Amino acid sequence: MVKAWSALRSSGPVFFVVGHCDTVAAAFRRGATAVERIGAPQEARGLFGKALPVFEPTGAHSFAAGSSEAARAAAIVDWIETAVRFARDGRASGVVTAPIAKAVLYEGGFAFPGHTEFLAELTQDLPVEGERGPVMMLAAKDLRVALVTIHSPLAAVPAAITAERVVRTARVVHQALKRDFGIAEPRLALAGLNPHAGEGGAIGREEIEVLAPAVDQLRAEGVRITDPKPADTLFHEEARATYDAAVCLYHDQALIPIKTIDFWGGVNLSLGLPIVRTSPDHGTGFDIAGKGVARPDSLIAAIRMADGIAARRAA
Amino acid sequence: MVKAWSALRSSGPVFFVVGHCDTVAAAFRRGATAVERIGAPQEARGLFGKALPVFEPTGAHSFAAGSSEAARAAAIVDWIETAVRFARDGRASGVVTAPIAKAVLYEGGFAFPGHTEFLAELTQDLPVEGERGPVMMLAAKDLRVALVTIHSPLAAVPAAITAERVVRTARVVHQALKRDFGIAEPRLALAGLNPHAGEGGAIGREEIEVLAPAVDQLRAEGVRITDPKPADTLFHEEARATYDAAVCLYHDQALIPIKTIDFWGGVNLSLGLPIVRTSPDHGTGFDIAGKGVARPDSLIAAIRMADGIAARRAA
Repeated sequence: MVKAWSALRSSGPVFFVVGHCDTVAAAFRRGATAVERIGAPQEARGLFGKALPVFEPTGAHSFAAGSSEAARAAAIVDWIETAVRFARDGRASGVVTAPIAKAVLYEGGFAFPGHTEFLAELTQDLPVEGERGPVMMLAAKDLRVALVTIHSPLAAVPAAITAERVVRTARVVHQALKRDFGIAEPRLALAGLNPHAGEGGAIGREEIEVLAPAVDQLRAEGVRITDPKPADTLFHEEARATYDAAVCLYHDQALIPIKTIDFWGGVNLSLGLPIVRTSPDHGTGFDIAGKGVARPDSLIAAIRMADGIAARRAA
Repeated sequence: MVKAWSALRSSGPVFFVVGHCDTVAAAFRRGATAVERIGAPQEARGLFGKALPVFEPTGAHSFAAGSSEAARAAAIVDWIETAVRFARDGRASGVVTAPIAKAVLYEGGFAFPGHTEFLAELTQDLPVEGERGPVMMLAAKDLRVALVTIHSPLAAVPAAITAERVVRTARVVHQALKRDFGIAEPRLALAGLNPHAGEGGAIGREEIEVLAPAVDQLRAEGVRITDPKPADTLFHEEARATYDAAVCLYHDQALIPIKTIDFWGGVNLSLGLPIVRTSPDHGTGFDIAGKGVARPDSLIAAIRMADGIAARRAA
């Protein structure tokens, strides 16, 4: 976070942290004065060139050292809610969430499998143009992947893949590529579920029975999407050049290729929400937290991407 | 095949083709005289510097243009059986199988999901030192992956992953790294089944109930293997440097990273068989067959790897 501010302080985009000010300040190993508390989002812009602005909600003190896990979890949830509120009412152009260790939140009673689902809940009363998400997308280098299922145990994936769900996911991705990324005619690739995309039904029939009807439906609506492709042949450099986003069916099918080609720079986006939301995608890095060795690439990319999407939506 | 011969004709390793001589000759667009029929494997060595040797089994003519699909499938099966026979009786040091379109074989009544399983069947009466395979391994650049399940529909994968099967697979991989690759103390990484390797049981319990006991068992036997790791964080460059092979649970978990980092150069190996068997791993390339645009990298790598393994086994 500190490195991201250093990289962006003169060029922008301007951002501020919602969280516990002392904890953020402690992350500055030299020159703690470069962190400054703000009382409202609009103070961030004037301050950004000289200090990292931190908005500390009431109750943030419960995150201090020595607090219970439950209190810390409650504080984190409050920060997310606060950031979403700023995005909802237009005082922030989007929310960039930092990596969280979900195990901590689960212990604190957090009922959502991840940020994405929680942010959808917090914005469900706001209208969305077109098909509503959330759809999780990861973007890194020349690859964008979107997920039909996210945090499902693998055993639950096949039953969760319905034609309707694939259609809704692909619609959201198609819209987002146009609206958020400015791609006039998006090209989608669809990953198969089974080895070799079922090899004509010999190794599973979901491609024939579930995915093919979804593809027909999408094409009838004008969405450009491939037939289900063997997932292993979909992510090498030449393949990546043939589409703007790959629609993947489950977590590791999407995240293995992204993290293999760019472990440190990936960005997680929530598509089809009424607010803009991105996140760095390299995990929580327990073993490096606060040591100044985190790589800021992914957070910087997430901030820039949120800014770009917000600008395109506002245009 | 032709390009592989051109690349290896002066340096070796020496190889010969088992198949239909006229079809192979037709693949030489210029100078068909560079293909020559041999009557026995031992003729290959003397001939190799000036022509690609082809051993044509009786019945190979049924592969000629105009033959039925069933006849062609039967011919392909016969060639595989012939090559395996040569490897079994020591007249060849190993078998390198070319990519086959399995759909053609299935139509011809072929009852195996792939080469690997068929070669296991053809060699099941021969003894194997240690744990018997087959275990499918893919190797490309700095990555080796081995598969616990191979051509299972995704819906069948979770039930197929048993502690016993994981243990047997890892044993075969451990042995092969020592015996076939000459690695004195192999380091194995184990991929989890679920997103985030189950995140402590929150997203699936197979890591706790099935994989952890397998890891305990393996360590008790002296096999060095990690706890189940989130599969998406296992394949970037820094992660790859920490192990000699990753034990993966299903087809795309292993093949997505391999083909993402090296689509054209990967080699498929059958571990734990009494014969040496490798194969190029870039698929059949229907649209490029016979046009001279195939990339020989993978076939050449497969031939070299078979030769290296045979040499280490013989040492």
